[in-house]
Amino acid sequence: MKLVVIGGVAAGLSAASRARRLDPSMEITVLERGQRIAYGACGLPYYLEGQVRSLDQLTLHTPQQFERHRRIHVRTGAEVAAIVHARREAVLAGGERIPYDRLVIATGARPAAAGIALRDRENVFTLHTGTDAERLAAFLRVRRPSSAVVVGAGYIGLETAGALRTHLKQVRILSRGQPLGRGGLAAETVRRLCELNGIGLETGVTVRDTALPGAELIVLCAGLEPNVALAREAGVETGGTGAIRVSDRMETNLGGVYAAGDCAETTHLVSGSPVWLPLGTTANKMGRVAGASAAGARERFPGICGTMIMRFCGVALAVTGLDGEAARQAGFEPVTVRVESLDKAAYFRGHKTTLELTGDRRNGRLLGAVVTGEDSATGGRINTVAAALTARMNVEDLEMLDLAYAPPYAPVWDPLLIAGRQLARAMRGGRD
Amino acid sequence: MKLVVIGGVAAGLSAASRARRLDPSMEITVLERGQRIAYGACGLPYYLEGQVRSLDQLTLHTPQQFERHRRIHVRTGAEVAAIVHARREAVLAGGERIPYDRLVIATGARPAAAGIALRDRENVFTLHTGTDAERLAAFLRVRRPSSAVVVGAGYIGLETAGALRTHLKQVRILSRGQPLGRGGLAAETVRRLCELNGIGLETGVTVRDTALPGAELIVLCAGLEPNVALAREAGVETGGTGAIRVSDRMETNLGGVYAAGDCAETTHLVSGSPVWLPLGTTANKMGRVAGASAAGARERFPGICGTMIMRFCGVALAVTGLDGEAARQAGFEPVTVRVESLDKAAYFRGHKTTLELTGDRRNGRLLGAVVTGEDSATGGRINTVAAALTARMNVEDLEMLDLAYAPPYAPVWDPLLIAGRQLARAMRGGRD
Repeated sequence: MKLVVIGGVAAGLSAASRARRLDPSMEITVLERGQRIAYGACGLPYYLEGQVRSLDQLTLHTPQQFERHRRIHVRTGAEVAAIVHARREAVLAGGERIPYDRLVIATGARPAAAGIALRDRENVFTLHTGTDAERLAAFLRVRRPSSAVVVGAGYIGLETAGALRTHLKQVRILSRGQPLGRGGLAAETVRRLCELNGIGLETGVTVRDTALPGAELIVLCAGLEPNVALAREAGVETGGTGAIRVSDRMETNLGGVYAAGDCAETTHLVSGSPVWLPLGTTANKMGRVAGASAAGARERFPGICGTMIMRFCGVALAVTGLDGEAARQAGFEPVTVRVESLDKAAYFRGHKTTLELTGDRRNGRLLGAVVTGEDSATGGRINTVAAALTARMNVEDLEMLDLAYAPPYAPVWDPLLIAGRQLARAMRGGRD
Repeated sequence: MKLVVIGGVAAGLSAASRARRLDPSMEITVLERGQRIAYGACGLPYYLEGQVRSLDQLTLHTPQQFERHRRIHVRTGAEVAAIVHARREAVLAGGERIPYDRLVIATGARPAAAGIALRDRENVFTLHTGTDAERLAAFLRVRRPSSAVVVGAGYIGLETAGALRTHLKQVRILSRGQPLGRGGLAAETVRRLCELNGIGLETGVTVRDTALPGAELIVLCAGLEPNVALAREAGVETGGTGAIRVSDRMETNLGGVYAAGDCAETTHLVSGSPVWLPLGTTANKMGRVAGASAAGARERFPGICGTMIMRFCGVALAVTGLDGEAARQAGFEPVTVRVESLDKAAYFRGHKTTLELTGDRRNGRLLGAVVTGEDSATGGRINTVAAALTARMNVEDLEMLDLAYAPPYAPVWDPLLIAGRQLARAMRGGRD
């Protein structure tokens, strides 16, 4: 049995590894277009910032390690030009044909087309691959610009702007939509932090290719789009999100062909709708399930809550589930409250943490949360909500959760419990 | 309508406050035996350590504040000698009779009887009230002992020993049972930290009153017992745990009489059995529900997972649900795994965190977790498990949770996901 995996980053390598563990006899080949595999692209802004010294630190594995420890054949610089499913063959750009019995498509995502004509200019960058990051870092070192424009206010745009601000006097963010594509606490926090840290932020801006004549440095982070051309040409169906449609076993519409990671869509556990949210942690989980399916095992990827955390200007900002606007669009009747609290007992001089919690007025169901704060408790609070959302808890269930309390770690009424209580009250129309 | 609350700390004040919000016309009186109300007893070890400068910082509210802002009459130094339920009267030690229509019993807990004959000696202390802490702090200041013996290795004993070790050359802990009454990772972590920090720990020791002739300073922390004598004499039933038996609305067997906090038992959400675990955060929640019930509202306290976090020698140690031994006793077929991991992306020099996860082999149900680590992410991880336990998730559900990932906050495979995966494998008998 031959398994071919197209793509050698998170999803692809997770799929190959899982298939190997389940089936020691499978012949497994990973085809990676680039020169590096298994690199943590999420670390690129931190490389730019200087917190990560070398791109090698972001490389988790080498092809040799996969070969030696897992008997997985990894070919870098191997660009797949076509999938001929009728013959069960992947055709490389050079013409070589790689036969498969099972195929996992993990072709990832790429920077969206906005401002694409700019890309050839030497002061215009994206930050999607290690090579991009190296080019940009070299430009900073050699040209010593004093200002930059970042196009896009998604999490990559924000992290990049924050990283650049540690080197440059002036950083401006131009974005078509709201920061992080959200309103409420998330957008407000980003605006406040931009102001505090001298980062310009203009939203409602459509960046035309000719719009930035005076800019010393331009980084295009205007979102991603799934890499699905190869799959589509082979007859693999995509969904309404534009990414590959898969079952909860990561099967595409073609028998024996699976897709996982940033090129595939999944189900949003709160809205129940298909969603495309390219994130490394999701890619890994999907990859594992795709690998299991390719090896004949029955595992399932249930979907995501849309959980995301980022650090921007030293502050943690985390979201999960739906905010008010997204909830309304999904057909809920959202009620949202916001709570400011300390993240420890008052006499421990805790940091301030702010929580925004949304529920459905009709049935009390919890719909989502945003948490911002200065320390690592932020992620734990958002994860607790993610577990509650996965279990379809009501706000009243959240309010009574048995959360850990000790003065150095939390106030006796955890901010989550306070927010749950206030949201429950707001959903009763303010009655106690 | 007259509400009388016996006890002016967490549960009692939460009950009084909740009743007031729900019923503006109720006459509410809180009777507190001591001189302070609303103090955070959980902060006493930190006062001893010197991290909290004054006991006043632990006092969250004064009787005047309750009087002024909530129209709740708080009487300190008011010891209730008897409850005469047939006449709906609480009788104070001085003979005064306080009539009630509804009664909330929130009499708390007290240090257990072990070593009680020692208590009169001037070098023997407990650490249960602010007065205890003041006496002990004065002893340390004036007598400058160089060594201490702490009796008991529950969380209060451990926190006290850790606090004393910051002042004294030699600290020994003597305990009848395992540290924290647990085996596995929790007990091992305590042993390791004791060793690293020069704290003696002897278990399997029954401390007799005459057993510590040479000790300069003895602190008795050999557990707590619920204060139920008053309630029992009034005909209030206690359960198998020795604490007051209540419904999920905090009703006792007597009409119009409620109990909440450290004097009451509740339901363990994993085992389904009655449990008594005196903790401030639980007391507050129970108190709120008792207050709501007393005011005629229908709220419910679902029970607890047994979540607990403490800091010992600078390390966070958190537990929730059942460990292997407790699970076996509760009739489960537990499987336990342990995972060491970094709590951030490797290139962010994360702290080490260790997770112990237990599940039921028969049906895959998640049963409990222990997490230790050096930073505040520990609490968030245990809370995420607490939410999963409350929702009766399976280990496979945990393994697929959509947890937040960004390099500064978590590794791409969160320790919880790794532990979930390994536990799922262990429950399959090691098969991949």
